[in-house]
Amino acid sequence: MLNSYSFIGCDKNFDESEKVIIGAPFDGTASFRPGSRFAPSSIRLDSDGMETYSPYLDDDLLNHKIADLGDMELPIGDTDAVLTTIENKMTELFASNKKPILLGGEHLVTLPSFRSALKLYPNLKLIQLDAHADLRDDYLGVKLSHATVIRRCHNMVGDDNIFQFGIRSGTKEEFDFAKEHTNLYKFDLSQVANTVRNLQKEKVYLTIDLDVLDTGIFPGTGTPEPGGISFAELMNAFHLLKELDIVGADICELAPNLDTSGVSSMTACKILRELLLII
Amino acid sequence: MLNSYSFIGCDKNFDESEKVIIGAPFDGTASFRPGSRFAPSSIRLDSDGMETYSPYLDDDLLNHKIADLGDMELPIGDTDAVLTTIENKMTELFASNKKPILLGGEHLVTLPSFRSALKLYPNLKLIQLDAHADLRDDYLGVKLSHATVIRRCHNMVGDDNIFQFGIRSGTKEEFDFAKEHTNLYKFDLSQVANTVRNLQKEKVYLTIDLDVLDTGIFPGTGTPEPGGISFAELMNAFHLLKELDIVGADICELAPNLDTSGVSSMTACKILRELLLII
Amino acid sequence: MLNSYSFIGCDKNFDESEKVIIGAPFDGTASFRPGSRFAPSSIRLDSDGMETYSPYLDDDLLNHKIADLGDMELPIGDTDAVLTTIENKMTELFASNKKPILLGGEHLVTLPSFRSALKLYPNLKLIQLDAHADLRDDYLGVKLSHATVIRRCHNMVGDDNIFQFGIRSGTKEEFDFAKEHTNLYKFDLSQVANTVRNLQKEKVYLTIDLDVLDTGIFPGTGTPEPGGISFAELMNAFHLLKELDIVGADICELAPNLDTSGVSSMTACKILRELLLII
Amino acid sequence: MLNSYSFIGCDKNFDESEKVIIGAPFDGTASFRPGSRFAPSSIRLDSDGMETYSPYLDDDLLNHKIADLGDMELPIGDTDAVLTTIENKMTELFASNKKPILLGGEHLVTLPSFRSALKLYPNLKLIQLDAHADLRDDYLGVKLSHATVIRRCHNMVGDDNIFQFGIRSGTKEEFDFAKEHTNLYKFDLSQVANTVRNLQKEKVYLTIDLDVLDTGIFPGTGTPEPGGISFAELMNAFHLLKELDIVGADICELAPNLDTSGVSSMTACKILRELLLII
Amino acid sequence: MLNSYSFIGCDKNFDESEKVIIGAPFDGTASFRPGSRFAPSSIRLDSDGMETYSPYLDDDLLNHKIADLGDMELPIGDTDAVLTTIENKMTELFASNKKPILLGGEHLVTLPSFRSALKLYPNLKLIQLDAHADLRDDYLGVKLSHATVIRRCHNMVGDDNIFQFGIRSGTKEEFDFAKEHTNLYKFDLSQVANTVRNLQKEKVYLTIDLDVLDTGIFPGTGTPEPGGISFAELMNAFHLLKELDIVGADICELAPNLDTSGVSSMTACKILRELLLII
Amino acid sequence: MLNSYSFIGCDKNFDESEKVIIGAPFDGTASFRPGSRFAPSSIRLDSDGMETYSPYLDDDLLNHKIADLGDMELPIGDTDAVLTTIENKMTELFASNKKPILLGGEHLVTLPSFRSALKLYPNLKLIQLDAHADLRDDYLGVKLSHATVIRRCHNMVGDDNIFQFGIRSGTKEEFDFAKEHTNLYKFDLSQVANTVRNLQKEKVYLTIDLDVLDTGIFPGTGTPEPGGISFAELMNAFHLLKELDIVGADICELAPNLDTSGVSSMTACKILRELLLII
Repeated sequence: MLNSYSFIGCDKNFDESEKVIIGAPFDGTASFRPGSRFAPSSIRLDSDGMETYSPYLDDDLLNHKIADLGDMELPIGDTDAVLTTIENKMTELFASNKKPILLGGEHLVTLPSFRSALKLYPNLKLIQLDAHADLRDDYLGVKLSHATVIRRCHNMVGDDNIFQFGIRSGTKEEFDFAKEHTNLYKFDLSQVANTVRNLQKEKVYLTIDLDVLDTGIFPGTGTPEPGGISFAELMNAFHLLKELDIVGADICELAPNLDTSGVSSMTACKILRELLLII
Repeated sequence: MLNSYSFIGCDKNFDESEKVIIGAPFDGTASFRPGSRFAPSSIRLDSDGMETYSPYLDDDLLNHKIADLGDMELPIGDTDAVLTTIENKMTELFASNKKPILLGGEHLVTLPSFRSALKLYPNLKLIQLDAHADLRDDYLGVKLSHATVIRRCHNMVGDDNIFQFGIRSGTKEEFDFAKEHTNLYKFDLSQVANTVRNLQKEKVYLTIDLDVLDTGIFPGTGTPEPGGISFAELMNAFHLLKELDIVGADICELAPNLDTSGVSSMTACKILRELLLII
Repeated sequence: MLNSYSFIGCDKNFDESEKVIIGAPFDGTASFRPGSRFAPSSIRLDSDGMETYSPYLDDDLLNHKIADLGDMELPIGDTDAVLTTIENKMTELFASNKKPILLGGEHLVTLPSFRSALKLYPNLKLIQLDAHADLRDDYLGVKLSHATVIRRCHNMVGDDNIFQFGIRSGTKEEFDFAKEHTNLYKFDLSQVANTVRNLQKEKVYLTIDLDVLDTGIFPGTGTPEPGGISFAELMNAFHLLKELDIVGADICELAPNLDTSGVSSMTACKILRELLLII
Repeated sequence: MLNSYSFIGCDKNFDESEKVIIGAPFDGTASFRPGSRFAPSSIRLDSDGMETYSPYLDDDLLNHKIADLGDMELPIGDTDAVLTTIENKMTELFASNKKPILLGGEHLVTLPSFRSALKLYPNLKLIQLDAHADLRDDYLGVKLSHATVIRRCHNMVGDDNIFQFGIRSGTKEEFDFAKEHTNLYKFDLSQVANTVRNLQKEKVYLTIDLDVLDTGIFPGTGTPEPGGISFAELMNAFHLLKELDIVGADICELAPNLDTSGVSSMTACKILRELLLII
Repeated sequence: MLNSYSFIGCDKNFDESEKVIIGAPFDGTASFRPGSRFAPSSIRLDSDGMETYSPYLDDDLLNHKIADLGDMELPIGDTDAVLTTIENKMTELFASNKKPILLGGEHLVTLPSFRSALKLYPNLKLIQLDAHADLRDDYLGVKLSHATVIRRCHNMVGDDNIFQFGIRSGTKEEFDFAKEHTNLYKFDLSQVANTVRNLQKEKVYLTIDLDVLDTGIFPGTGTPEPGGISFAELMNAFHLLKELDIVGADICELAPNLDTSGVSSMTACKILRELLLII
Repeated sequence: MLNSYSFIGCDKNFDESEKVIIGAPFDGTASFRPGSRFAPSSIRLDSDGMETYSPYLDDDLLNHKIADLGDMELPIGDTDAVLTTIENKMTELFASNKKPILLGGEHLVTLPSFRSALKLYPNLKLIQLDAHADLRDDYLGVKLSHATVIRRCHNMVGDDNIFQFGIRSGTKEEFDFAKEHTNLYKFDLSQVANTVRNLQKEKVYLTIDLDVLDTGIFPGTGTPEPGGISFAELMNAFHLLKELDIVGADICELAPNLDTSGVSSMTACKILRELLLII
């Protein structure tokens, strides 16, 4: 009779589930405007205003076995401890043979999640949808930051394993680094199709920094970058990505406090629904 | 010398008018986020920031005879009484041989308005621009709701008389119902042209749920759905709909309180201007 | 390890609890500005930023056995059905020999809650802290409304059983009615002490319309009335009310959407904490 | 049947009225944060959420004959033309033997209004409730400004005719000027009683800059100054001022766009109601 | 070690600079919603969240010699004095043989800036990107207004020297005037390429009213007009305009107070970055 | 001619100054709602709307020699590095024989500032105005946090050297700790006078957590606590504290993003003005 507090349609218990949602409400390295710590609870609450059925995929969350594990309790003001907490939990989830979807928080949460997945899948590929390259080696002297997270991932997997789409912001050095070490496609998702063809036999981790979306449809993010992709482009990319063997994923950088209209939260809800249906 | 409080350029009195605007500030069945009750006054006030001339149509509100009748006074907390009040007023307006444009309020206000029109035009067709199918049979046990309004209309007119465009949200059951009983076109307005060709000799009632627009350009609505149509697509559809014999119309689901930038209200103003020019 | 979604420090299960919190997210008769439907979830989420210990009372929520039952699922747009749902649930709670605290929602939710309590305690007294008299016989023709709720309570208990404090808004007729039929004290809580003395042997139901607070400290409410009481005055009244045998209570009319600073929600949290400690 | 757009309870026509409300939506010299241009329409719309009856005075707007004339249409960007427009209109109103209440807009609107009244009442006294002295001789070289308005009034009436209360901000020069030329009482309204005694036989113009109120209860103003008076203090002062022969008044500097909670507008509504009842 | 307060990457001193930024925080003729006075400081502060490198142009602000001169101090409430102040300063800057970029403020600031440039370049062409024609002869009787600014420019340069793009709002008279006297292209920037071809040998002044952008991506503006251009269209136009000899430019009508998400400010930042790189 | 970006009236250079303002925009351990990182820039910008003259003290910032050094550049996401940066800078400032006023940021910035002062003044006393005791030994396992900052100070100075006023929130353990180890006065500032008498011969460091103010007048803070002190109470305490030998001070926990009315920022401005005048 009473309202639950989980993402809509995801009320299985852990043991019976095949996919699991878990939140990491951390925005400790946000350099410009914080608030992504509020994303997981906002996504859960606002999902109540959304249908479980997807007319894009003609599929329904209710057809799947999904658990929502709530949020990890993270120490505040201690980045190392936060990353350790996330890594331990994600390692446990990957080991449980379920597909985890991590809800950030800021983009740095991808690091412990991807590292956990790598333990199980050493040849794992990383697909990143993002406005920012996130390839700095350090940011104001700090090595662990939302602005360095993909560089840290590169430290682990080396060249040719990272695929970046929609990138429209970074330093000259980041774009130069990408030319040598990653597959970076600027501005849009038009090259996703090719990449999907090339990764048919691979295990893939998918990280979605929601600021890849255009600021018009997604103003609620810490470091907005005009000129992003449309919702339709993202849906089309999802239809392609559906063909891949995605072992885990994350959705980051919704800052609901920055979009009082609530549209950004609702957009994140719908992207999470579609993501749950394609992986 | 003093400011009036009517939609800009619509200052004819009732008797001399050919088209009439009237507001129904009701949002009593809003399931997610209320506020469409504030739409009519917001539209009137903000219309002061808009021109009466349309460069899209090369026409001007001042060329037409339009009255703005203000808002109906609606009992609060009693849905049945509200619907009766609206139906009585709309019946009176349709009977007066003028073209009424009803300003919601939520989408349920379409029901008494459409029912009033049906009394005069028994073969009336319903064209709906909307993000939601609104075809549920009930919503949490309630039969009269913004989520059931088109189903209730179907109860009155039966199969093949309802044309739905832009729909991108609903339950599986609603989409299945539509396959059997209505003409539902998903996601965009590309099929409006065909429908217009087929309805050349018909009387038509047009209902516009403003959430058919993309959330980027229309965040101020109770149940936003990403992935909607652009303003240009809507203007193009209006140019097609201009060919039809539209006997009445409504514009619903602006919730100005949810868009503090005021852009949603201004967009509603401009759509109302264009609508007044095409019917 | 994971966040719960209940009022802080209130995580007992139903059977072991002595006091229970339950939400009624209903604002269907809000005449001016809706939003109190969002109060229960806002109070729960924001309670995370508050201590369980009260320096006012030198007591701690953790010293008490309290359950948070979440929200009732209420039909939307059908006031009668909503009131029935609340009454059935509250009757069950009162019968269970626990002290229920109902979280509105708007003030009309007091009606079914008080009626439920009356079944068990036929001589029940009603203490109301409120800016508004709520003594209209009808509001725009509607009998069941936030503006008539205490009049409806009077219909049940008759003269001399209702005590109203802090009232600073109403029609002439309402204040005249109060002179004949209730004990109404205008503007402040200075007469609470006397009332407490007179009700030492009585069962009491306490209803708190949060708009009794000054608009400066509680802007997040649908019908704000300048010139209200301070937080210190309310705390002082609570210390007096602690002496009474309060069998149930409610807290109404927080509209968190109207106070983007979050201060109103936090104030409601703290009032709920103190209320849980004094009953 | 339809909503009007005038201050609640003030629907008499001009000829039958004894008191008249008129708006001057001008904020052209706002130095810090504009928005008082939106005050008159906000006050009218929000008055719908307020009772016409005052429990403070046991009187009702419906007992009085009051017209609401709407807003003057003011040229934008031309301060001289604006002041001329206001002066012409106010002169007409004063000449009609009715008591006008002018709704600003910013405080500079007091200048043409007071000048108009002076034509009829050459010995007129000015009572000002305000946070700011407004006694600069110029502001960034500009002579006509919200920051110079009382100095300009002093230019017309000379020493000993201006009474300033609640003042808590100004330059050293302004406070020095006041010592020589006006009766300025800092911080609160405690000296209103004395002034009222001394002005028993005088004609008085009352100007209320709403920023005299504490920022806690009135955040919606362009130049907020912490440490202001409470609503109760203002009500008490009104009870004293009731004894005076106030021939006209104004209420200025509500900037509703700066207080999204709406509380400042509602407070302005209530102050206007009480003001209408005491003059 | 400490933060500066200038547009990011523009920290050269005046003498060594080739391009200079200067702000004119004036919105005195804003007819609908003020706030563009806050644009320059908002653009400077928010530029801290943006990279200096442009992946669109593969160029970096750090490769150029740019000074940020801060804001002019403008008298408030005296339009003539404001325009004189701006004209004097801009004349000085044009005479210094640097390329000035003026940050409005409202669109009227273009008038003194363009007039200053005309003194040096008598055959100067004006390219305007805007939603509004701004060709009224007067606005409510006022000759100097954001709504008349291009008409005033036409008064100076006569026919065939003004090129208007993206225009989607105006009176019938304005569009008729444009047919005779300017080159006005409605709705989009598709004709920029042709114009660029025809102006290869000319000196050009570029004025960008940011409301030319779609309201979805730029809600923070005083008079929003749905149906505008995308960020990509503007970037494409910039790539074409790069070929011209632009001697000065301005960016107007950001009202950051109207877009609490901050996205409009960030979009203005990025447009300013690109503009600095193409002129 | 151009606007500076420093606190109003504080434009001396470092060498000639006697008091210096410096910002530490850090909110990395904010547990509930971040945003105090924006405080220093908000205070500087909004100070433009305030007078330099204080009618409370009949003194003017222009009578004093004050420099505003801007903000320290702080690494993001690395609390230890932030504290080291602040400590180094503050040590330098204390050593320069000037009185520093540190603008937080969150309350943890007091730790490195107080530690720096202790190096010079080993018998330093700490006076804290705050809603929270901040005496936890750790917070979610983290030792360096806004919730532990005064406990860390106690670790340095031991018993009887810390004086806490206005405290109205904390755990039972914190209040118990205070009984043994600090001088904690709950709820108000009434005991400041006694403390001032007892500390006549001492060096004092003053830390002001702005949430000591009532939420009504200061909603813009991360962890608001209803029931705080008024502005007048704070001004009165300042008049008393003026007698002490305050060697340094800080003002913390303004989160301007949480108070869209801007009143909290303006209140912080005025408190900083008064603080600069009394030390």
